[in-house]
Order: sequence, then C-alpha cells, then structure tokens
Amino acid sequence: MSGVFITFEGGEGAGKTTVLKEIKDRLEASDEKVVMTREPGGSIIAEKIRDVILNPDHTEMDARTEALLYAAARRQHLVEKVFPYLDKGYIVLCDRFIDSSLVYQGVARKIGIEEVLNINLFATGGFMPSKTLFFDIDPKIGLERIAKHGNREFNRLDREALDFHYIVRKAYHELQGREPDRIEMVDASLSLTEVIEAAWTKVFDIVQAKEKK
Amino acid sequence: MSGVFITFEGGEGAGKTTVLKEIKDRLEASDEKVVMTREPGGSIIAEKIRDVILNPDHTEMDARTEALLYAAARRQHLVEKVFPYLDKGYIVLCDRFIDSSLVYQGVARKIGIEEVLNINLFATGGFMPSKTLFFDIDPKIGLERIAKHGNREFNRLDREALDFHYIVRKAYHELQGREPDRIEMVDASLSLTEVIEAAWTKVFDIVQAKEKK
Repeated sequence: MSGVFITFEGGEGAGKTTVLKEIKDRLEASDEKVVMTREPGGSIIAEKIRDVILNPDHTEMDARTEALLYAAARRQHLVEKVFPYLDKGYIVLCDRFIDSSLVYQGVARKIGIEEVLNINLFATGGFMPSKTLFFDIDPKIGLERIAKHGNREFNRLDREALDFHYIVRKAYHELQGREPDRIEMVDASLSLTEVIEAAWTKVFDIVQAKEKK
Repeated sequence: MSGVFITFEGGEGAGKTTVLKEIKDRLEASDEKVVMTREPGGSIIAEKIRDVILNPDHTEMDARTEALLYAAARRQHLVEKVFPYLDKGYIVLCDRFIDSSLVYQGVARKIGIEEVLNINLFATGGFMPSKTLFFDIDPKIGLERIAKHGNREFNRLDREALDFHYIVRKAYHELQGREPDRIEMVDASLSLTEVIEAAWTKVFDIVQAKEKK
C-alpha cells in the first residue's frame, strides 16, 4: 500500500476533529490526494455492528463483547473504506482508531491494554497507523471548553466524570511512552491556531518523508 | 465454577445433536442438574450479532470481521447463558463451541488456527470446555445420511461441496491431536445406538470424576 494512514487521538475538548478538518483542507490545497474518515465511516456492516454496541436496550453487554464488536467494526471499516484508498496512494486521516480502544476498553474498562491490542491486531492483520497525533490536554480545561462551546456551565456531573477523563489521559500518555516513534504528542492546551500549526508541521513532515521514498 | 462444561463437535450428518438430546435425557434421569444450549442460545445481544453475520445482504463481510463477530456472540452467550449455570453446579452441554470457529474460520476460511484461537481465548477469558466430544465420520457417509433423512438423492452440489467437508474433518483431527486430553473422538460411523453408548460412557466418566472431587 503506497498511501499514508494518520490517526488523530485524544480526550474530549482537545479540538482534534476541528484540527483534522483544517489539515485536510491544507493537504487538498497542496494538491495531495487526501480522504478523512472515522469509524464506522459509511460501511453498512460496520454501522450495523455499531448499532448493536450503542443500542440502549443492550444493558447486558459485557465489556469483552463490546471490545470484540469494536474490533469487528474496525476491521470492516478498514477493508471497505481505508485499504482501498491507501492502495491508491491517498493520505487517509482517521478520527480515532486503535488507540481509542486501548484506552477506553483496555484501561478505562479494565480489560488490559495487551489483551485489547491483541484482538485489534487480529482485526488490522498487524497493520498500524503510519503516524498518530495525540492531542493532549488537561481534562478540566478540555471539558470547560466543551461546556463553554455548548453555552452551559461546567456542572456537577462533568466534575464527577473528571476522574474518568484523567484515567483516559494517563492511558494515552502510557501508550505514547510505549510507542514514541508512532505517537506524537501535540500540546492541545495552546490556542487553536497554535495547535493547528503544530499538527500541520508534523503532518507535513510525514507527507514529505513519504514523497522522498 | 463448580459445574462441568461439555461441548459437542463434528461435521454434518455425524448425529451429534441427536446424541446430545439423548445424553441430556439420561443425565436428567440420573437426577443430575443439566442444561443443553447452543450459540446464540437466547441471549438477545448474541442473537443480534448473529443477525449481522447471517444477513444475506452483507456480501462485503470480511472473514476476520466474521470471526470477531462469532467471538463476540460466543462471549455474550457464555456470560449470560453458560457461566451462571456452571456457577450453580450444572452440567452444561453445548452444541458446537470454540472448535467450530477454529475449524470453520481458522482452517476453512484460511485465517489460521492460532489467530482464531487467540481472539476466542479473549472471548472466553481463557476458559475452555472441561471436555469435548468430537463425532467423527467420513463426510461422504455423513452427507448421504442427511440426504437420506431428507428423502432426497445425494446430488451434484453435495458432491462438489465434499472437498470442503474433508478439509473440516482433517482440521478436527488436527485439533484432537493437539489436545488429546480435552477432545475425545467418538466413531460416528457406527449405528446411532452404538454412538449414543460410546458418548454416554465418556460423559458418565466425566460426571463421575467431577463428583469424586
């Protein structure tokens, strides 16, 4: 596969989706072949799987069942919506990918990073992103941003959930420590303009490196 | 868990489902607490997952997606319909389980036994059957039995599919060779009465061994 697969990761309020769109626009302006996606990304089968995961009636859903279903949806999205573009030399930007499962199912749901990594490597057939940008922000600031954006106060429930978001952030830091070459950290506490510039520099380097090959 | 989990495996026409029902009746007649199940076994979530697998519109289904979905349905069936009975000391008889995935997804679909085993061990949390009865029969005889039962001739399509069933049989033999203590072979080419007696002897031994503990 001649393309480049770049994933965007991070907690709530880090601005990664906004940055992703800007990066896509800049790559297109530079005449790069680029596509932006997120799971389930329009794969009918992956969407059906996601419906099973998210159905509010499924209160009996076991954490391992859920992790296997996410891996199944990931596989199908990859096969239908990512691999064909990589084969054609596209830069594929993906909003959340394998690291989200490692953090949310592996750590937050306490299944274990290694175990969740194994089923995800089965799903990807060993394929991993060329590069992952992790948008790092103190969860308190991230959630305040969301609250502000939604024109509402940071409330008691947000505060209660804060511990969970600190666990998520710590897990992302652990992953970054394990794979410092793949996962690059972007300081998302800066202004949006600065975050975009930092992310753009990294993506530009990856694309340049690819074109030199 | 104080119960015993016994799985029944084999190709088409080996008579395993008929034998299973007879074994269940005999165990009940011996005042054993026994339950018979098969995946998805009435778990609403496992049934929904199965619907995604079997939907004839899902022609884009990838083999690895399918294997992950079977593992997800297995997990949910275990958690909802098997573990609770084992906890209460029941003998749980299950019509097909992990070995069917190893044979059909691992070998016939060519993903590989080890890879399919790994995601299934994730699904079971390392839990395996106490004992597995593999009903072995020459596929030609098995399919002729089915054809006879259905009052129709063994036809061209059956014959074309025969190669597939020989691959399945060979894979079951390989599994039995890998785990001779867990997987016991029953010669299913004998008369139904003889097959039932052979299976009953094995199940009776397992139940006796359990009661001595």
